Amino acid sequence: MQHALDLACLGTGSVEPNPAVGSVIVDENLQLIGEGYHQQYGGPHAEIHALSMAGTRAKGATIYVTLEPCCHQGKTGPCSQAIIQAGVKKAVIAMRDPAPHVDGGGIAELQQAGIEVELGLLESAAQKLVRPFVKRVSTGLPWVHAKWAMTLDGKIATRTGHSQWISNEHSRELVHQLRGRMDAIMVGQQTAVKDDPLLTARPAGRRTPARIVVDSQAALSCQSKLVQSIEDAPVIVIAHESAPSDNIKQLEQAGVEVLLFSNSTPQTAQPDLKQCLLELGRKEMTNILIEGGGSLLGSCFDARLIDEVHVFIAPKIVGGKAAITPLAGQGLDTIPQFQNITEYQIRTLESDIYVQGQIEYQA
Amino acid sequence: MQHALDLACLGTGSVEPNPAVGSVIVDENLQLIGEGYHQQYGGPHAEIHALSMAGTRAKGATIYVTLEPCCHQGKTGPCSQAIIQAGVKKAVIAMRDPAPHVDGGGIAELQQAGIEVELGLLESAAQKLVRPFVKRVSTGLPWVHAKWAMTLDGKIATRTGHSQWISNEHSRELVHQLRGRMDAIMVGQQTAVKDDPLLTARPAGRRTPARIVVDSQAALSCQSKLVQSIEDAPVIVIAHESAPSDNIKQLEQAGVEVLLFSNSTPQTAQPDLKQCLLELGRKEMTNILIEGGGSLLGSCFDARLIDEVHVFIAPKIVGGKAAITPLAGQGLDTIPQFQNITEYQIRTLESDIYVQGQIEYQA
Repeated sequence: MQHALDLACLGTGSVEPNPAVGSVIVDENLQLIGEGYHQQYGGPHAEIHALSMAGTRAKGATIYVTLEPCCHQGKTGPCSQAIIQAGVKKAVIAMRDPAPHVDGGGIAELQQAGIEVELGLLESAAQKLVRPFVKRVSTGLPWVHAKWAMTLDGKIATRTGHSQWISNEHSRELVHQLRGRMDAIMVGQQTAVKDDPLLTARPAGRRTPARIVVDSQAALSCQSKLVQSIEDAPVIVIAHESAPSDNIKQLEQAGVEVLLFSNSTPQTAQPDLKQCLLELGRKEMTNILIEGGGSLLGSCFDARLIDEVHVFIAPKIVGGKAAITPLAGQGLDTIPQFQNITEYQIRTLESDIYVQGQIEYQA
Repeated sequence: MQHALDLACLGTGSVEPNPAVGSVIVDENLQLIGEGYHQQYGGPHAEIHALSMAGTRAKGATIYVTLEPCCHQGKTGPCSQAIIQAGVKKAVIAMRDPAPHVDGGGIAELQQAGIEVELGLLESAAQKLVRPFVKRVSTGLPWVHAKWAMTLDGKIATRTGHSQWISNEHSRELVHQLRGRMDAIMVGQQTAVKDDPLLTARPAGRRTPARIVVDSQAALSCQSKLVQSIEDAPVIVIAHESAPSDNIKQLEQAGVEVLLFSNSTPQTAQPDLKQCLLELGRKEMTNILIEGGGSLLGSCFDARLIDEVHVFIAPKIVGGKAAITPLAGQGLDTIPQFQNITEYQIRTLESDIYVQGQIEYQA
């Protein structure tokens, strides 16, 4: 199963909105006779690769698969039927697929065909691998990554707004790698105006992320690098329903997709962020990277929408009461008594420190 | 010489306001016949320990010493004369002593007595070891350490001012070890009021640091833990000359030393921080640890008074535009293009990250 998990990892970034899945088939003497992973969205699933490698030897064999086999006709045929037809004797499955069109149905089909099913081997590692997928299919929300680069005194820009560059080139390279496995990169309106960024992955990664600006009045300039480079990757503007129609029309004419949202909080001309993310989830976006600024990140943190953080800390100090910090918004009233960043990893990238972890919100 | 430097380290924290010094004596066959280090302020210097161990074998031998031997009568006799009288043939000295009462005088005496002198072996390591001493004797200012504990989003307190505890117990233990080798711990008035801290080293270290509050109006309460624990360690209040005399009188009656300073900037009722530190230098304080808050640290950074930082980063996120950041003050206008924290080290203390380094101010 560990080998199947390692194989599954290879598909990450290419298979979304599908989950990354790996599979291994062994014969009665525990000899490996087939292996495979889901390599590309729209392509064959892991089980099909493994079964095809095993061929007729799959009869009487045991299949290991990191996620419950699908039982529906999608882009490809149902894997449950392929396993049954190959004459497999036993299926060891790390975790159930929570997607509504599977949700135990694959396991049931195997069992009805007389195949012995064992569920739960290395389940937590398997869960971790497909966490963004599971979040989307169970809540409708994408998995939200937040990234910031700050100084050793916690600033993302000086009091004048200067921010280039806090992190070193190794950190910035890693950010581009991150971008290359995302469905979208999101920034706030101020960041879009101040930095006039491209937000593309350079060099290109496995995915070409859409570029999203949360811009309540749809004021993004058609002369911005984002709009000017629309041939390279889609641009989406998320605006409040009160945005001037002229702005919207201009952006749409330039090829930008404008999504309008209301806000249930009175007198708030900001789009409701959870509704925005649900809409992106409906567009089958699984991973979204928010790169700032502090206002957008703070609002997302307050709304408990951030799942994972990527923090780059540079050995620089800038000071300044008016300097800008990574998370604005409302914030917590008290320091959490237990760390609310979990499963985190610390790496040094030459002079920078890179901390990656998940946010745990308290009940 | 490396062995002499290792020996010297053992005295750090006990010998100040003297420098830490180590010494090794080898005979003609390079056999070690004496070694020693300056162990305690007022006690024998490193060379005297080493000469006493070598005894009559010092005749014709070579002495290694990490700092130029003194040539003055202080708490103890001049080491230069002791070396001469022992009949040492050659002296290898890592660095010249910049203190005005030495400053090449020790080397000159040795040479006049016919001893061969070699200067500069492992000089940079020797310089590093006595940097706080060198700063004090050459500029009159103590070596200023700044310490803060912040969240992964760069906050030292939430928007409500809550700050206990950001760092874990391992980090706090290390802070107490730091305190135990300082001459004074300094905080701002707001920190003294809000946290009502003790600022003692627990358990006690090699030194008992004075506790200093920068408190322009000398408003520190006589009921504060600081004043109430005055038997444990001295308390110094640094106030502006405009502080009410009643406040000053009450504090002095409680045993607090009140130091008054003016400020050359008009309409500023804050004591001039450089003048304060010069006064502490005159009191032979070599190492001062500033523990916050953000205003005091920011002002010290703006005045280029901080030499070394100790930053504890906890895997917690609190958010909040109104949350408090480690360095307030004016701050820099632009991000330095090269790291301004140098010679830094990164350690993990269980869940926390500890970064220690020196600040380099740009010309």
